[in-house]
Amino acid sequence: MRDDHFFSKLKRGPQVVLPKEFGVLIAYGGIENGDKVIDAGSGSGWLAVQLGRTVGPQGKVYSFEWREDFAKLAEGNVRKAGLEGVVEIVQKSAFDGFGVEGVDAVCLDMADSEKVLPHAQAALRMGGLCVGFLPNIEQVKEFVLQGEKLGFTHERTADVLVREWLVRDRGCRPQTTGLMHTTFVSFLRKK
Amino acid sequence: MRDDHFFSKLKRGPQVVLPKEFGVLIAYGGIENGDKVIDAGSGSGWLAVQLGRTVGPQGKVYSFEWREDFAKLAEGNVRKAGLEGVVEIVQKSAFDGFGVEGVDAVCLDMADSEKVLPHAQAALRMGGLCVGFLPNIEQVKEFVLQGEKLGFTHERTADVLVREWLVRDRGCRPQTTGLMHTTFVSFLRKK
Amino acid sequence: MRDDHFFSKLKRGPQVVLPKEFGVLIAYGGIENGDKVIDAGSGSGWLAVQLGRTVGPQGKVYSFEWREDFAKLAEGNVRKAGLEGVVEIVQKSAFDGFGVEGVDAVCLDMADSEKVLPHAQAALRMGGLCVGFLPNIEQVKEFVLQGEKLGFTHERTADVLVREWLVRDRGCRPQTTGLMHTTFVSFLRKK
Amino acid sequence: MRDDHFFSKLKRGPQVVLPKEFGVLIAYGGIENGDKVIDAGSGSGWLAVQLGRTVGPQGKVYSFEWREDFAKLAEGNVRKAGLEGVVEIVQKSAFDGFGVEGVDAVCLDMADSEKVLPHAQAALRMGGLCVGFLPNIEQVKEFVLQGEKLGFTHERTADVLVREWLVRDRGCRPQTTGLMHTTFVSFLRKK
Repeated sequence: MRDDHFFSKLKRGPQVVLPKEFGVLIAYGGIENGDKVIDAGSGSGWLAVQLGRTVGPQGKVYSFEWREDFAKLAEGNVRKAGLEGVVEIVQKSAFDGFGVEGVDAVCLDMADSEKVLPHAQAALRMGGLCVGFLPNIEQVKEFVLQGEKLGFTHERTADVLVREWLVRDRGCRPQTTGLMHTTFVSFLRKK
Repeated sequence: MRDDHFFSKLKRGPQVVLPKEFGVLIAYGGIENGDKVIDAGSGSGWLAVQLGRTVGPQGKVYSFEWREDFAKLAEGNVRKAGLEGVVEIVQKSAFDGFGVEGVDAVCLDMADSEKVLPHAQAALRMGGLCVGFLPNIEQVKEFVLQGEKLGFTHERTADVLVREWLVRDRGCRPQTTGLMHTTFVSFLRKK
Repeated sequence: MRDDHFFSKLKRGPQVVLPKEFGVLIAYGGIENGDKVIDAGSGSGWLAVQLGRTVGPQGKVYSFEWREDFAKLAEGNVRKAGLEGVVEIVQKSAFDGFGVEGVDAVCLDMADSEKVLPHAQAALRMGGLCVGFLPNIEQVKEFVLQGEKLGFTHERTADVLVREWLVRDRGCRPQTTGLMHTTFVSFLRKK
Repeated sequence: MRDDHFFSKLKRGPQVVLPKEFGVLIAYGGIENGDKVIDAGSGSGWLAVQLGRTVGPQGKVYSFEWREDFAKLAEGNVRKAGLEGVVEIVQKSAFDGFGVEGVDAVCLDMADSEKVLPHAQAALRMGGLCVGFLPNIEQVKEFVLQGEKLGFTHERTADVLVREWLVRDRGCRPQTTGLMHTTFVSFLRKK
């Protein structure tokens, strides 16, 4: 099991998908042991590492990143996590296509991700999922409507709010301030 | 990857932990491929099956259920999921202890779960997690305070709200009604 | 004080602003005794009646409704509430302007409300508020950006979630299901 | 209408009920022009002033505060708001009773407010409301169960979350961080 200091050991890079969104991805997406998954862009590799730890040795994560500095950062984090055999960092732009087929899921955490949908469709197996991590609602709309045009089914767009509670003998209450928003998560299924 | 009709294939039983709470468990708990996990009570086996699909062939799920009818229901669902090798349904009350050691996590989705904390502590490895699924806030308080008395560290109690959006060309908005609450999720770490 | 059956006494008409949004309007808008307020469209008159009960005998509510049937429905509800002296239902389209000046607030609960912003600006006193009740996020964006072009200051767009709790001796928890969304509330101030 | 700098003009004192809770009080409580309302404790007088501006010249607010320093602070804020005729700051402990009868609502924003319920019951007219502002859930439970023992009806306990949106040409999204909790608001009706 990932120890509780794991996050702090990973080198920080561009803003990453947070645990609460990763949880939604795994739980609603049904991603599991043995799956083949594409992730773009790698950024710091945080999501690639989490996915690698879930799909395990039988599974595979292809993580695409066109920027050399981020690709190196991500590769370093993959090594730290001991996932060289599972997670492959591919230094290539997702806009040029993935060159992989029959994957179970494609996770897009990048700008203009709707432009990558045709490549995602080519890479996915029938019944596979394309999941977009989209901070602004306009991005959600473009991603979903573009996906529907291409024949994807919009299964769900989730907006996850995790409220943490103070639990004390003298009284329990939600914490006063907290995270109100990181990103919407949209699920498109190839049918 | 779990197909999108997977949930509907499982035989329904007692109220189950929902995907949004399962997501929080995996994401914040860092449960992954190869982990050894205890789950009590099995109920319909839904959580045991999800855990089995995450920890995979190298991992192990011991799922405890004292009621024979639920144990049989859970075993059926484990077979349907093809996880006989990974998930073991143990027909025994969690209140009598687990008889297993060095596990990474203990998930408690049952009444009076705070009474099981000493057994969870005995079963967990150092750094392992005891996670309580607790519908009422009084249960959260008993679980957390009792856990702290026993030496656990209260890492987090999460209240997860997933708002689903209607994404349409004519306009985007959250759905009018939805799920407001299922259960709180409390994380205690053995230190 | 409005008795607790008051809502049920009002004749139902088109979908109305709900108490939680009315509360945000009063609290963030600072609408009070003696204010002059415009409301469009009247619909069933629910908001006009609530505003009338807040601004009271010294205040005034001009409620615009172009549809004769709704205007009659609203007038009936104003009479039921005994507010003939305070709330005036004007059967006229808001798109043709209000013909009133120096009002403290303009409340727009209608389609294409951004097209009414110039009329709202003409009717408002300096420092007055134009408040839009907008179900879809695209409407919020048009309303706010159009308002800023006209010189309004976007003070706040609020998305209000009221979670109701079951409070019982045997355990307290939020209700299982509830209202996830009615409308966004955007506040533009004339500066 | 309260101008937009009104809040900043009031002298700060002990933690106050926030606009979002005030909105819930007005909207669900139906407090309006002409009402007679009790408020305890005054604290900085913020709630007393807001109530005064709502119930207006025909209405009355009796605001109880036993601490001399707070009572003086509250009186100063009442004068600043020009509400001497409407809001009366009474320097007396709510635990000793109110000595007022037939009021429409009693608002309790103080510790151990459940101990004041019998005094609230004596002061309220039939059908009147006793509203508790309660930061911790244990206080909610004591307030509501004690109230039900005394014959009050628990109408609602609300947990209000206001999410503010960034509305920009380049993209709309909820603000990243925000206020997760201030206080629960419980409504008890005298039947």
